[in-house]
Amino acid sequence: MRVLGVDPGLTRCGYGLVEGVGQALNLITVGVIRTSADSPLDQRLLALEIELTAIVERWRPETIAVERVFSQLNVKTAMGTAQAAGIALLTAARFGIPVVMHTPSEVKAAVTGSGRADKAQVGAMVTRILRLDVVPKPADSADALALAICQIWRGPALARLSAAMSQ
Amino acid sequence: MRVLGVDPGLTRCGYGLVEGVGQALNLITVGVIRTSADSPLDQRLLALEIELTAIVERWRPETIAVERVFSQLNVKTAMGTAQAAGIALLTAARFGIPVVMHTPSEVKAAVTGSGRADKAQVGAMVTRILRLDVVPKPADSADALALAICQIWRGPALARLSAAMSQ
Repeated sequence: MRVLGVDPGLTRCGYGLVEGVGQALNLITVGVIRTSADSPLDQRLLALEIELTAIVERWRPETIAVERVFSQLNVKTAMGTAQAAGIALLTAARFGIPVVMHTPSEVKAAVTGSGRADKAQVGAMVTRILRLDVVPKPADSADALALAICQIWRGPALARLSAAMSQ
Repeated sequence: MRVLGVDPGLTRCGYGLVEGVGQALNLITVGVIRTSADSPLDQRLLALEIELTAIVERWRPETIAVERVFSQLNVKTAMGTAQAAGIALLTAARFGIPVVMHTPSEVKAAVTGSGRADKAQVGAMVTRILRLDVVPKPADSADALALAICQIWRGPALARLSAAMSQ
């Protein structure tokens, strides 16, 4: 499996591509797309869309996993995050790539065993799972890798559960 | 001036193009883009983007005015609305068309004189201002026309105010 994780955000949008199955997972690419808080919102969304499109075109993931965010306390930040997530969903749809969403607690539970793990624990587990020399920084990039790992490990089971519940 | 108003939404996204200056305003086109609540979110955003792109390509507005929404009580609906607004902003940026946002109360105040006017009052005033035979339905399309009217009447003054405040 070849999954692109996207931790959506306007200021920093983490992305990470992971390939493999089970415990044999490899990091293919990881990074952060940044847009300036000084730029108008429409230009930030366009910059994000252009960069995400370039990443998808170059790396051709089979699935895109986007963090599901709808419980942030700061409404203004939540709107920007939702819009960044929307751009990721749009990009996936445009390429015809299946896209899934996982909540932060699903991702934490998948990689650390606890849905309430902190960012340091997530970073440490991602580093171990992918056999990296250093923890990916900033945390947004580690979170994106965790999303991709979560999808590879849990995606098929979650999809079956979702299908069963909708019957 | 030739302004496209967009009242963002996933289930119904109103749009309306108004041309003119001062009291001499004309309706050019008005309508609603609908996406099915049964479709996955990524497909809904893609459908919205394709339809908005077609409207912008066909009608070439000079400015796009999008409703600014960040105070909705229902968080799940607010996220979808924010993402639909994000698609409108992205579309504007891609065409290099200036985009502005107005709050619902700014729009209501501009067309009715009261920031707390109800939908029926907004619809009635839009109908009168544009010399229409009937009130545009659904309300989302009337709201989109009100946004365009608000931008034509208030946009230049609001832009000067915003510039003065940022000095």
